[in-house]
Amino acid sequence: MLKQYLPFLTWLPQYNRATLSADLVAAAIVTILMIPQSLAYAFLAGLPAEMGLYASILPLVAYCLFGTSRTLSVGPAAIIALMSAAGASTIATPGSPEFITASIALAFLSGLILCLMGLLRLGFMANFLSHPVISGFVTASAIIIAIGQLGALLGIQVSGTNLPAMIHGLILELPNLHLPTLAVGSAALAILLWCRRWLARTLIRLGLSGKTAALLAKTGPILAVIITSLAVWWLELSEAGVKVVGEFDGSLPGLVLPAVDLELWKALLVPALLISLVGFVESVSMAQTLAAKRRQRIDPDQELIGLGAANLGAAISCGFSVTGSFSRSVVNFDAGAETPAAGAFAAVGVALAILFLAPLMALLPQTTLAATIIVAILSLVDIAGIKRYWSYSKKDFFALMGTLAITLLVSIEVGILSGIGLSLALYLYQTSRPHTAVVGQIPGTEHFRNINRHQVETDPHILLFRIDEGLFFANSRFLEDRLYTLVFQNPNLTDMVLICSAINYIDGSALESLEAINQRLKDSGVRLHLSEVKGPVMDRLQRTSFPEHLSGEIFLTTYGAWRTLRERSANANREERST
Amino acid sequence: MLKQYLPFLTWLPQYNRATLSADLVAAAIVTILMIPQSLAYAFLAGLPAEMGLYASILPLVAYCLFGTSRTLSVGPAAIIALMSAAGASTIATPGSPEFITASIALAFLSGLILCLMGLLRLGFMANFLSHPVISGFVTASAIIIAIGQLGALLGIQVSGTNLPAMIHGLILELPNLHLPTLAVGSAALAILLWCRRWLARTLIRLGLSGKTAALLAKTGPILAVIITSLAVWWLELSEAGVKVVGEFDGSLPGLVLPAVDLELWKALLVPALLISLVGFVESVSMAQTLAAKRRQRIDPDQELIGLGAANLGAAISCGFSVTGSFSRSVVNFDAGAETPAAGAFAAVGVALAILFLAPLMALLPQTTLAATIIVAILSLVDIAGIKRYWSYSKKDFFALMGTLAITLLVSIEVGILSGIGLSLALYLYQTSRPHTAVVGQIPGTEHFRNINRHQVETDPHILLFRIDEGLFFANSRFLEDRLYTLVFQNPNLTDMVLICSAINYIDGSALESLEAINQRLKDSGVRLHLSEVKGPVMDRLQRTSFPEHLSGEIFLTTYGAWRTLRERSANANREERST
Repeated sequence: MLKQYLPFLTWLPQYNRATLSADLVAAAIVTILMIPQSLAYAFLAGLPAEMGLYASILPLVAYCLFGTSRTLSVGPAAIIALMSAAGASTIATPGSPEFITASIALAFLSGLILCLMGLLRLGFMANFLSHPVISGFVTASAIIIAIGQLGALLGIQVSGTNLPAMIHGLILELPNLHLPTLAVGSAALAILLWCRRWLARTLIRLGLSGKTAALLAKTGPILAVIITSLAVWWLELSEAGVKVVGEFDGSLPGLVLPAVDLELWKALLVPALLISLVGFVESVSMAQTLAAKRRQRIDPDQELIGLGAANLGAAISCGFSVTGSFSRSVVNFDAGAETPAAGAFAAVGVALAILFLAPLMALLPQTTLAATIIVAILSLVDIAGIKRYWSYSKKDFFALMGTLAITLLVSIEVGILSGIGLSLALYLYQTSRPHTAVVGQIPGTEHFRNINRHQVETDPHILLFRIDEGLFFANSRFLEDRLYTLVFQNPNLTDMVLICSAINYIDGSALESLEAINQRLKDSGVRLHLSEVKGPVMDRLQRTSFPEHLSGEIFLTTYGAWRTLRERSANANREERST
Repeated sequence: MLKQYLPFLTWLPQYNRATLSADLVAAAIVTILMIPQSLAYAFLAGLPAEMGLYASILPLVAYCLFGTSRTLSVGPAAIIALMSAAGASTIATPGSPEFITASIALAFLSGLILCLMGLLRLGFMANFLSHPVISGFVTASAIIIAIGQLGALLGIQVSGTNLPAMIHGLILELPNLHLPTLAVGSAALAILLWCRRWLARTLIRLGLSGKTAALLAKTGPILAVIITSLAVWWLELSEAGVKVVGEFDGSLPGLVLPAVDLELWKALLVPALLISLVGFVESVSMAQTLAAKRRQRIDPDQELIGLGAANLGAAISCGFSVTGSFSRSVVNFDAGAETPAAGAFAAVGVALAILFLAPLMALLPQTTLAATIIVAILSLVDIAGIKRYWSYSKKDFFALMGTLAITLLVSIEVGILSGIGLSLALYLYQTSRPHTAVVGQIPGTEHFRNINRHQVETDPHILLFRIDEGLFFANSRFLEDRLYTLVFQNPNLTDMVLICSAINYIDGSALESLEAINQRLKDSGVRLHLSEVKGPVMDRLQRTSFPEHLSGEIFLTTYGAWRTLRERSANANREERST
């Protein structure tokens, strides 16, 4: 029980020198990757650079204690940073102290929400976000981020929360582009792209093993950072107007509990909820991918608590919203991290960097960070997904493109909410029209088949109707419409048999619909019968007055219903004729 | 085609003297019931009395042309009036000209929404409102309406949009209660309750047939109206402070197209949407009940257009939101209405009343109207429903009570939205955890059963897994968790067979999950196989690269999979031992 809520009790007792050295190596590599990323994502979130570093210390320790993935690297991440910026800017101007307060409050709220969801085992809420919606949302966010960073690369300011506004801003500001900034940015971009494509091969040629080379190639950004920083310092480009990160306080963040401000929290509730959901979905699917490779297991509900603790950690140490990072987790895994302690060690690495490297980081050109983000983010544009959904399922394609378009054209918040609404609506639309069939007897057998596809025996007085789905609120109205239409189309009808072989559940709404159907069919002179009701469904029905109000009978088999009703109908006809 | 959109083309050609006289009789009775109701619901909506009458003319004519129910009586209704008041009061003070503009705009918007939904065949959207949510919402609304009207009955002003605020207001204002108003109100209440309980029996004793007596007893409100109006006039009680309807312009409303005011429309969009949904759901279930009794048919999508046209009619003739009225529709049906023309004739009746009876209606005490509403509304409190859901389904009970509580304690808008969210969440929760089973072979047969319930044969290397639900975004994550857990619990596993006999569809999200499962299982050294894939599901899968990436095979039968894999596993073991 205790181990469930404090997963580190599982791995800490077995901790030894071998795991320690593995974790330390992984932590060192992750730290090198983490420093430029943290600074870049802080800028993306509209916050001072040091807040990115702060968000890379305590959250990692918190996740190490409460998370269940052994290799997930928690910290600032691109899409969450963008969502944080969008959420905070609804109530304050970027750059203002209120904006910082709002960003911290977002992390705090989202930490509370995640922990609460974890304790209440509400991990299933993430199901609201279907894959096409996530894909559309991530693609649109990546495009928005890339265009925003394109501005930084050109040395101009691009504002706006949606694509048309940003492109408009970009075009207006284009004449003000700053050539030295563009030169540095282009150099950084060139280095990054070179690292991505050629560094691994070069390292292999230098004699490294394929795996080590691939791993080292992933730390390419630090090369771009070092080279462009040196260039800017050497050529004194910051005096020529190339913006750098600038000096910041080289000390660790103090711990402060955010003030309780209900007014602020209420205003930030929806953005915080969306950040929590998106962060959780991204993080948990990453963690599952990595855990499967080593036959380990993660507990999604405990992951909520781990991620919640990480965000609370960020909030009390002046950081901002964090989640599991895709790129760093892969590096952490490939570098051989064995336990979550690797994360804690990376936190120590970042803390040491703040204490000793702050003067060096101050020289880092912002345009290099922009280049880093652009290269990282464009891999998230999911063209393959769009193609696949187009060929596999038009409904999913529609959900994806709807989310994509609304996110780009309106705003990321409206985009994701519309996406959730759209996929739910499409799902309800589908389940609200389940497959149904009027069936008839295959002559001489006890089998019944669709009257439209097979030569079967039917009777104008008796209708056998099958529905291939559980009955619940979303399809109960459809069932009503369908049955009334059938009664209307068959004026000689006296008996309707509802074949329940595929009905796994009947919820309260559907039960009321069945009662209404029974009553209305009775009013129009048609008896309603049921056949092949499953055991658990029947048990529930027995608890209600439905079976006694039922105008017809409940038959064990459809064949039994057919035989009994046909005999009765034949007798009735005979009597009619004889009178 | 034309008949579908203009349903009156179906019945008008067959119109004759017999249907005319039947419709005229029904229209006369409905008009008598409609006049006090229209005035009362206008007050409930916070609007001048005459607007209730205006909402009872053009909307009826519009529905007569576009509606498909032969007996539905459209016009002002209690819950919609309450929702209209709540919606309009979010942007204007009740009684102000802006409030009237907002109420008319609500009718206009909701007319547009309904017509649009009808043209796009979006009737299924009403499925978002499950029965328990409607029941909880209607019960809570009835309680709120009754308490508000209790104030009018006592001659005091009760404001507030939720129960605590209203009760607080009621207690504060209680010392100011106006005894003459209370006396008139109590008299009206007494007459109404007497009519309800004894009028029919008295009429039968006077020699009327049971059916006629029951019908006439329903028009009891007019008796209360006449008696109390005469009393107030005779005793000059309005000078003593008993509020009456007061004089209004005794002419028909002019037709005015509401001004296009996008700012206003945006603010009213959500209330208008909710009014449309609730109005449609109430109206269509009423129409279906009545249509079934005569084996007639209504078309839900065309009903949206009919109801939309009625609301547009209300908006352009200075009325407010309308829907199908429960009580009046039953009276219209029982009185023998044959075609929607009865509604148009009732509209003529109301128009004549405005022209000739306005001076008399001015004498009507408001407290009588309050008594009318209280008696009508309390029958909507659904105690039986609460009990039934409690015993039948705790999930539905929870959705009902949640909607009820939030509607009472917060506001009707938040209440219904939370209810929709709650029932969707509960549904997703349920479908996100479908029934699954690990199965084994019943020795000597080709049948497979749950290993927890039956003596079956299993193999430590092979796992047969069945899921009893279609795969889609809400349960794909559950399937992943479940399979990873099984792989984790069975360290010797080499082959996993997913039995697909109960899988009717696999959406895009679930396909991605299957791909991830396949990849992750492969990473942990387990092959994934499928068996008993249904034809349509297989056709779709063939369009993707999933079958070729699948680490295992697709077997026609589970037995085939079991036999093949066992043989292979036995061979592998033998080889292992021999080496």
